[in-house]
Amino acid sequence: MLTPTATLARFAAELRHEHIPEAVLRKTEDLLVDWFGSAVAGHGSRPVESITRFAAQMGGPAAQAPALGQGGAEVLISRQRGSAYLAAMANAAASHVAEQDDVHNGSVFHPATVVFPPAVAVAQALGRSGQDLLAASVVGYEVGIRVGEFLGRSHYKVFHTTGTAGTLAAAAAVGHLLRLDAAQMQHALGSAGTQAAGLWEFLRTAADSKQLHTAHAAAAGLMSAYLAQDGFTGAAEILAGPQGMAAGMSSDADATRLSDGLGTRWATVETSFKYHASCRHTHPAADALLQVMRSHGLQPADLHRVETHVHQGAIDVLGPVTSPSTVHQSKFSMGTVLALVAQYGHAGLAEFDQHFLSATTQALRDRVTMRLDPEVDGAYPRRWIGKVTVHTTDGRVLHGRVDEPKGDPGNTLSREEITAKALRLAAFSQGATAAEMQQAVDALWQVAQWPVVGALLPSRAGAA
Amino acid sequence: MLTPTATLARFAAELRHEHIPEAVLRKTEDLLVDWFGSAVAGHGSRPVESITRFAAQMGGPAAQAPALGQGGAEVLISRQRGSAYLAAMANAAASHVAEQDDVHNGSVFHPATVVFPPAVAVAQALGRSGQDLLAASVVGYEVGIRVGEFLGRSHYKVFHTTGTAGTLAAAAAVGHLLRLDAAQMQHALGSAGTQAAGLWEFLRTAADSKQLHTAHAAAAGLMSAYLAQDGFTGAAEILAGPQGMAAGMSSDADATRLSDGLGTRWATVETSFKYHASCRHTHPAADALLQVMRSHGLQPADLHRVETHVHQGAIDVLGPVTSPSTVHQSKFSMGTVLALVAQYGHAGLAEFDQHFLSATTQALRDRVTMRLDPEVDGAYPRRWIGKVTVHTTDGRVLHGRVDEPKGDPGNTLSREEITAKALRLAAFSQGATAAEMQQAVDALWQVAQWPVVGALLPSRAGAA
Repeated sequence: MLTPTATLARFAAELRHEHIPEAVLRKTEDLLVDWFGSAVAGHGSRPVESITRFAAQMGGPAAQAPALGQGGAEVLISRQRGSAYLAAMANAAASHVAEQDDVHNGSVFHPATVVFPPAVAVAQALGRSGQDLLAASVVGYEVGIRVGEFLGRSHYKVFHTTGTAGTLAAAAAVGHLLRLDAAQMQHALGSAGTQAAGLWEFLRTAADSKQLHTAHAAAAGLMSAYLAQDGFTGAAEILAGPQGMAAGMSSDADATRLSDGLGTRWATVETSFKYHASCRHTHPAADALLQVMRSHGLQPADLHRVETHVHQGAIDVLGPVTSPSTVHQSKFSMGTVLALVAQYGHAGLAEFDQHFLSATTQALRDRVTMRLDPEVDGAYPRRWIGKVTVHTTDGRVLHGRVDEPKGDPGNTLSREEITAKALRLAAFSQGATAAEMQQAVDALWQVAQWPVVGALLPSRAGAA
Repeated sequence: MLTPTATLARFAAELRHEHIPEAVLRKTEDLLVDWFGSAVAGHGSRPVESITRFAAQMGGPAAQAPALGQGGAEVLISRQRGSAYLAAMANAAASHVAEQDDVHNGSVFHPATVVFPPAVAVAQALGRSGQDLLAASVVGYEVGIRVGEFLGRSHYKVFHTTGTAGTLAAAAAVGHLLRLDAAQMQHALGSAGTQAAGLWEFLRTAADSKQLHTAHAAAAGLMSAYLAQDGFTGAAEILAGPQGMAAGMSSDADATRLSDGLGTRWATVETSFKYHASCRHTHPAADALLQVMRSHGLQPADLHRVETHVHQGAIDVLGPVTSPSTVHQSKFSMGTVLALVAQYGHAGLAEFDQHFLSATTQALRDRVTMRLDPEVDGAYPRRWIGKVTVHTTDGRVLHGRVDEPKGDPGNTLSREEITAKALRLAAFSQGATAAEMQQAVDALWQVAQWPVVGALLPSRAGAA
């Protein structure tokens, strides 16, 4: 009988590309392209540029960094090379800032931002194939999602699960590319779990920590896998042991979740794409508001009051944000998101950037409230039901509802929509030209045929 | 009224060398030299060499690393240069492995291993003076110790306080060298606290995580301070906020401890040196056993049974270690430590290495038990009282007691003893020749006169 961490480690080490169903691989390609757009979207973001400067400063001159295939990897927002470790750190910071990266509902975990940056960096550094990259990414998703589910709702009340579970997800993906055996993988998870960190406290003052959490998870997870390859040992039972992650950071951990359907239930395909550029907790209500406004032909001026019916997690994360003062903070403001959706039909990067503090947005924002709803809360986190009650200025009381917000597996994005989203993100951040991005995305859809994972974007010799 | 974290940040930013009492500065020199011995003692240790190799691999060629004073710093066990970040990571891994580095009793926190590696690396990288280094180190000690005290005993049951509080200690020391203002320092603490990590679970299988915890704390703390200098923001109240460190990782946190006597009570001078090369929790009982054996002229063969009367923390940390299989694990075995002390009068690195599994040691080890003692537990962690009851083979029942173990402030080490200990540690690890070490220690005692902090050891051109 293997312990929970040993079971997960064996799965992570032994999963082979040929074991993975075709549909899972294709979905992983979707997630990879979707991630790529989010990573390029980090270009020009102050906190992301800070972390990228730090990584460059601490890694030695980029001109002397090893080539791809010889230990070097691509820093997407600077188009420079760096070591796999520092490239993973910078790219993970970049991938989460636009709030457009994917999410797994049941674990409230954003896999792409902590799985792809280290997996792509190490695949580039070691010259691994596209199939290797896909298999390693599936390993990262399957492990990270299960760790998030295991840590439970009590964990998420204080900890940013993407930072904590993400450290193990990164270690698993990188460990797979390093071809760790099951015992080494277990050590890698042990070293990752004992570095797992990330607290929600930063939201209260709209601080930059979210980017630091993903950078930290990617870098610490990658380091854990490299150390394990070198014989460095970690705790055997870092997840469920009496002084492990659950003991320290959860009060409702459920160890059965760690091995739930390993190899038969593919959690990767349960992952949702984000349609709005805001915290995922706002999406169900946003889509429900759109639904009721469209059904009844409502205009923003018709909205006297909007009551959203939400799960407790939404109140925990969004509740402290009453009067957002930055674009980033406004993505955690239910009122702001609904105000933008009401006005523009979509809360994208451009809508936030240009309108998050407009007089109309603020007026609408302050007419939105959240209320805990037993049905929504009971279904969460497996299903993210959206429910709103709209009180119109002419005295009607209308109800909006969606059972799956746009981007969820049952209401997913097409490859055309994913491509368009990536192009929009690059255009917004100016992280790549339209031609560069189109070419990069076209190539990335063929990743399964790549003999080696090379640069995703053309290098920019002499760039800062 | 400043919040707890803001108060601590202001103190850390605004403390000046001239505000620090002479006795505190002299004690800091003692701690610095004592730390230096422990850092050199990491040479040749497998987990330390692993982390050092990783840092070198991810930092680019050492030959091309910047010089000291221009961003480069010294990796003590390889005698190579690296960036301040990667040197701090490697040196912090090295400093904690011999279990000879200092400890602050009240916070159960080992300051030297997380304060001096980043402080020395950054002082070298920026060409700061010896006085700057001393002042920054005092800041690191004062902050780290108070954070450890704040997090309390419940935290230490699951978390390795040196890893968690250490991240903030490192950020504070580095932030002082970077001359952060109070607001920037508060951001640095926010970024550090949200990366704080380190779980005791690794002890159960004698894994290598302790070195990873200190490496992580030093590196993440340093990164937090550099980011803050670059405008990166962190949570305002990472310590006592509703989703901060205490909320997530403690059930008995006491926010009054964070500002306890700031600028008047110097926690730095409360720090103890370690005399035995084992977990500090074993020291009071070890010294009590020595006391009773010396008083009654007992030999190891006279010991039929030894009952140690300990605090709960000792049982939590040492309890799982019943049959140690590695030298490192044996340093957490109360029975092994007392067996070595009984045989050799001191449990040093050489005694552990050569005798931890001898037949005599094992036989003695298995005759040692731990029992929770109300007096000892009540005084802990402010005072670490040692009490043992010895049942002799001829039927006597004898009691041993010490009120302060050797190395505590009231029973401290002289500068000659500190120098001798550092030389012993270097000789044991072969991290430096006797002549190199003597010269380095002689120079380090003069640190207050150094115009710039240079290399502590001669560089080894072409070394691996």
